[in-house]
Amino acid sequence: MSKQAFQDYYPEELSHCYGCGSNNADGHQLKSYWLDEKQGETIARFTPKAYHTAIPGFVYGGLIASLIDCHGTGSAAAAAYQAQGRVIGSAPALRFVTGALNVNFLAPTPMGVELILRGKITEVKERKVIVEITLSADDVVCVSGSVIAVKMPATMG
Amino acid sequence: MSKQAFQDYYPEELSHCYGCGSNNADGHQLKSYWLDEKQGETIARFTPKAYHTAIPGFVYGGLIASLIDCHGTGSAAAAAYQAQGRVIGSAPALRFVTGALNVNFLAPTPMGVELILRGKITEVKERKVIVEITLSADDVVCVSGSVIAVKMPATMG
Repeated sequence: MSKQAFQDYYPEELSHCYGCGSNNADGHQLKSYWLDEKQGETIARFTPKAYHTAIPGFVYGGLIASLIDCHGTGSAAAAAYQAQGRVIGSAPALRFVTGALNVNFLAPTPMGVELILRGKITEVKERKVIVEITLSADDVVCVSGSVIAVKMPATMG
Repeated sequence: MSKQAFQDYYPEELSHCYGCGSNNADGHQLKSYWLDEKQGETIARFTPKAYHTAIPGFVYGGLIASLIDCHGTGSAAAAAYQAQGRVIGSAPALRFVTGALNVNFLAPTPMGVELILRGKITEVKERKVIVEITLSADDVVCVSGSVIAVKMPATMG
């Protein structure tokens, strides 16, 4: 596992995301890494705050959707650099946003434990990357999801 | 539009949700209402905070997913009471959680304006309600989504 997260390579001006931007002090600051770069597998970890509650004792689904979203776009950026044979973070920046997000809540996600997000890159095109993601707690997969990430439109930059 | 929101009828012990619980001081406290009860149409409004940023100038997709999620489960509860011919909030409580959440980001959602969520109930069964939702900003639909809401499992209550 490399020491720097994918999100640490985002350009300064694109690092304000509430979910994963290192410049957003109020946000989640999610960090994603390669778990197995050759296999296109990524990982992130997150421990919810007490107030990230749905029904007491269980994690809020909107937070889970947010984590899947940001782990997906971060993994997409890393995969795009990899596909182009480029060093991650090198200019021009490859930054992805979410085109579609699908989340299936398979079992209630318990509070009080670290959540593990595992991503698998399943498709890489120049402007579109698909990432399949699971979220587990205590080694139980509670949520599965997918992110169709699209290259950030020039109008957003 | 009725004065009390669907979420205001949730039992006290089920009102801690980060997205819409009136007992969660740190959360979004989303409020959903009937727009047209006969047509099964619902509405909610939300103005993001400055820190709910994705790329600067645009709203964080994870927040949008969260709002769609909570507007969906709230609308589902109201629809279930309606389908049973019961007064909303009457005991035993009908409380729904999200089984599946799908979000399509059609256009970047601008910061600095109130977001309007419109829900349409498309299916009501005893244990499952489907709600189709759009999110608009400045009268432009930026996001569409759907929530498959399922009756809260007894293990969560």
